[in-house]
Amino acid sequence: MTFEIFSELQYQVYLPTTFIFSIQASRSNSQVIIEESLVTEPFITAEEIIGSEGGSRFIRLKVNGNSRFTIRYQAKVDIDYNTIHQRNLSYTVPVNKLDEDEMHYLFPSRYCQSDKLQKLASKEFGSVDTAYGKVAAITEWIYNNVEYNSGTTNSSTSAYDTLTERVGVCRDFAHLGIALCRALTIPARYFTGYAYGLNPPDFHACFEAYIGGEWIFFDPTKLVPVNGLVKIANGRDAADASVASIFGRASSTSMTVKCECYDPQFKPLYFTNTENQKGLSY
Amino acid sequence: MTFEIFSELQYQVYLPTTFIFSIQASRSNSQVIIEESLVTEPFITAEEIIGSEGGSRFIRLKVNGNSRFTIRYQAKVDIDYNTIHQRNLSYTVPVNKLDEDEMHYLFPSRYCQSDKLQKLASKEFGSVDTAYGKVAAITEWIYNNVEYNSGTTNSSTSAYDTLTERVGVCRDFAHLGIALCRALTIPARYFTGYAYGLNPPDFHACFEAYIGGEWIFFDPTKLVPVNGLVKIANGRDAADASVASIFGRASSTSMTVKCECYDPQFKPLYFTNTENQKGLSY
Amino acid sequence: MTFEIFSELQYQVYLPTTFIFSIQASRSNSQVIIEESLVTEPFITAEEIIGSEGGSRFIRLKVNGNSRFTIRYQAKVDIDYNTIHQRNLSYTVPVNKLDEDEMHYLFPSRYCQSDKLQKLASKEFGSVDTAYGKVAAITEWIYNNVEYNSGTTNSSTSAYDTLTERVGVCRDFAHLGIALCRALTIPARYFTGYAYGLNPPDFHACFEAYIGGEWIFFDPTKLVPVNGLVKIANGRDAADASVASIFGRASSTSMTVKCECYDPQFKPLYFTNTENQKGLSY
Amino acid sequence: MTFEIFSELQYQVYLPTTFIFSIQASRSNSQVIIEESLVTEPFITAEEIIGSEGGSRFIRLKVNGNSRFTIRYQAKVDIDYNTIHQRNLSYTVPVNKLDEDEMHYLFPSRYCQSDKLQKLASKEFGSVDTAYGKVAAITEWIYNNVEYNSGTTNSSTSAYDTLTERVGVCRDFAHLGIALCRALTIPARYFTGYAYGLNPPDFHACFEAYIGGEWIFFDPTKLVPVNGLVKIANGRDAADASVASIFGRASSTSMTVKCECYDPQFKPLYFTNTENQKGLSY
Repeated sequence: MTFEIFSELQYQVYLPTTFIFSIQASRSNSQVIIEESLVTEPFITAEEIIGSEGGSRFIRLKVNGNSRFTIRYQAKVDIDYNTIHQRNLSYTVPVNKLDEDEMHYLFPSRYCQSDKLQKLASKEFGSVDTAYGKVAAITEWIYNNVEYNSGTTNSSTSAYDTLTERVGVCRDFAHLGIALCRALTIPARYFTGYAYGLNPPDFHACFEAYIGGEWIFFDPTKLVPVNGLVKIANGRDAADASVASIFGRASSTSMTVKCECYDPQFKPLYFTNTENQKGLSY
Repeated sequence: MTFEIFSELQYQVYLPTTFIFSIQASRSNSQVIIEESLVTEPFITAEEIIGSEGGSRFIRLKVNGNSRFTIRYQAKVDIDYNTIHQRNLSYTVPVNKLDEDEMHYLFPSRYCQSDKLQKLASKEFGSVDTAYGKVAAITEWIYNNVEYNSGTTNSSTSAYDTLTERVGVCRDFAHLGIALCRALTIPARYFTGYAYGLNPPDFHACFEAYIGGEWIFFDPTKLVPVNGLVKIANGRDAADASVASIFGRASSTSMTVKCECYDPQFKPLYFTNTENQKGLSY
Repeated sequence: MTFEIFSELQYQVYLPTTFIFSIQASRSNSQVIIEESLVTEPFITAEEIIGSEGGSRFIRLKVNGNSRFTIRYQAKVDIDYNTIHQRNLSYTVPVNKLDEDEMHYLFPSRYCQSDKLQKLASKEFGSVDTAYGKVAAITEWIYNNVEYNSGTTNSSTSAYDTLTERVGVCRDFAHLGIALCRALTIPARYFTGYAYGLNPPDFHACFEAYIGGEWIFFDPTKLVPVNGLVKIANGRDAADASVASIFGRASSTSMTVKCECYDPQFKPLYFTNTENQKGLSY
Repeated sequence: MTFEIFSELQYQVYLPTTFIFSIQASRSNSQVIIEESLVTEPFITAEEIIGSEGGSRFIRLKVNGNSRFTIRYQAKVDIDYNTIHQRNLSYTVPVNKLDEDEMHYLFPSRYCQSDKLQKLASKEFGSVDTAYGKVAAITEWIYNNVEYNSGTTNSSTSAYDTLTERVGVCRDFAHLGIALCRALTIPARYFTGYAYGLNPPDFHACFEAYIGGEWIFFDPTKLVPVNGLVKIANGRDAADASVASIFGRASSTSMTVKCECYDPQFKPLYFTNTENQKGLSY
């Protein structure tokens, strides 16, 4: 299925500033970039850095102070997600068989203090069968118990806060999902992307859990179809994969994000309840 | 019913230090002190301060530096708690009818950040009928979801922490109960006392909620019979009613606490579930 | 000196809501209310509650749901603050001589976690001579190290946060001042009021410390003249003395605050540095 | 210089448990392992995992429940640290020239919330010349302002806490150093190792900052000579590099750590003040 994605970010730059942007679609076997363009105004030589997480790409560039700056990205991306067999979803990879790449995602991180949530996670979800069942239950629980409300949280809000304050945005929902998974010894990582049907349009954040040897996708916001995401990056949490890291002094003045699919065959797929859920892997 | 209480606290005092102790039984119509004695070694003139909360009494004294200090308290106290009619328990005093004295107990305090728990409290307990039903449900929930484990928390642990970490001691259980009540606009206050049957013997902490015009007693630890408590003090939380406030430099070297009842008619009363609960007011 | 104060608060009220407003000038020997009026639209019977802190008055009223509500307060107030002799300012009341009324203000509260700041306070300010010198040094330190920036903090920000994040508004400055004083065993309390010359006009928050037997006024924001304040209330922190406590569901739609002095003899007095400071007591 | 290191950890294992140990000396050009042995009792096949951070090695093994378990590690290691030229230390690698490997260490992590410390770091250390000067000043500041006191903090204590509470152990000192560096856009990472002369003997934690193209070593505890460390691992913080990660249920029953140097030519080198400091790179 082919998606057309677009983003434009504008900044007022006060002092010489290095930006690291994470706005490009990642490259992988299941996500092929058919065409893309990246434009800056004024023109500035940008460097592409390949992330250690498979396929993530960062754009780094330095902008002069006392200027206005715009970056515009556009791509056509072919997505071929996998539906995972139930059989695999019932299998949990034990810690002593995880590769080093996945082991990282068991440890607590800036916004996902899984070390503090072990009793709670074990009490609430410990008795659910299979790793897949646990993560699906976590996802439902977040959906049912946390209120989606923009403007109530900020860039320092963490899973620890969200668990208590019960309000947040997609980023907070993802952090809480990740923290609860890790507290149950299930590797989990942050996922940012473009999302079809997100209203108002914005970048989206979800998470992936490592189950049966695959990274399975979960979205506790249930705001968008699960088969309409274009992945930008993975990371331990938003500290690794924020849309823009700014070193210097600049403020955002405008942001536009789009994600469209013109293929008449595209049927948005919503997971309605945990019973019917099948796994999906990007 | 007559209880005999005893406590002995010993300190190594390094610098001249003012102590404020909250270890004496409070005086009230339902708690009559038959006899009591307070001894310090060495002898130091102590001052009794009557707290603004009805009946609480504080002992204040100043100890020289570079010395050892012991305070010993002993009393015989006659307790006459009230069992509250179901009828009253179904009635909630609305905020606009509360006196100033009770209104205080609606506001967040050091260890009870009720302002951050409103969504959670409303989601979990908001639909329970009557104020009494809500507080009973909160008490059950804490009992079922928080693990009692000494040594896991410290004097800066607050309700916000306990809600997430799900472990603590009586003080933490009480703080969480208070915070959840206040988040539902039910006045709630901290209660410290001597407790019959507490094992190992120690000072105990519980809480009271203002329902139907009375302060009703709740103990989410369920460690002791609800009719075996001798009240020392009330307060917003442990900041107001800690056993010893120390201004100077001293460290505790030993503590002994006892609470006995020699009356053969005393029948320990445990609240077994929320259905059968009746209110109890000290 | 006579000040004319005015405030108007408007709300959209969704559900039946009880408001407790703290917007009236407090009454005391040094603050005489010459005339005042309180108007609500629509007309609603309001009740005045006298706070346990000397002179504070709260307005409580209940508003129907699905309505718009306005409260308007206007007063002419004669202020007669005291300038405190240097001699008194060098004297510190020891803990064992404090009355119960002042002792309260030694304990940590919701937004002033003094229990966690003892090492820091002792390291930074412990060696300064006299209680007055310590509080003046704290006030200067906050002024020099915390950035005044509205919009960066919210109603759950506490002294613990401000000490690290180094940004906030008058409320945060006051909380930090209070917490540091208490950490040094100096009683300190929150002060809200109308402030001459505050730009943009708003309610103001400062703090008072108990030194030499008087409550001495400090304002670490240095935004307004110290002799141009009309006191509304004192409290342990903003939990006790917020402008409006809302029990129900309502949102603020507009707020206007004014504080004027038409007396040609009024000379705004700014404390410029700690050397020249004299104490001022409201 | 050759060091002999030894550690023995014993556990009571309740349920089948996977351990990941980080106790082996890392391998690098400047740290050559002459001989080493790893023994477990009972014998259990252990797997060595090479960390993504150069040279770190993890031991992973699975222990049966209801058993006692001991792991014992012994090695002779030849250390050849580099002393860095002053010239290099005055040079700071700008963000837009960092490799992806170093960029990671600019972002906040579980125990190092650098995102919240930017104003403080900039105010306190922003005006110091050169990256080296800044990190040296941070190291001195921690040494002078944080009290080393074991038993006051725990495994969930973070830099945010330590900055306010001003007390901790080597792990807390390192986290605070790292957080402050990152807040100033200087990459910084956690360093664990065996330390000559540490009393009582234990594993040690310090940090490294990326300056002039090298990872320079800093130890804000000043407890041990800077030329007597054998590196075990690097990581973003203790979440990545804890001595033992335990998945299952087990409790530590005993721990022994040793680090000796029998070479008569070994001269312990202490950095006494920032003026004389030279950089050291492991």
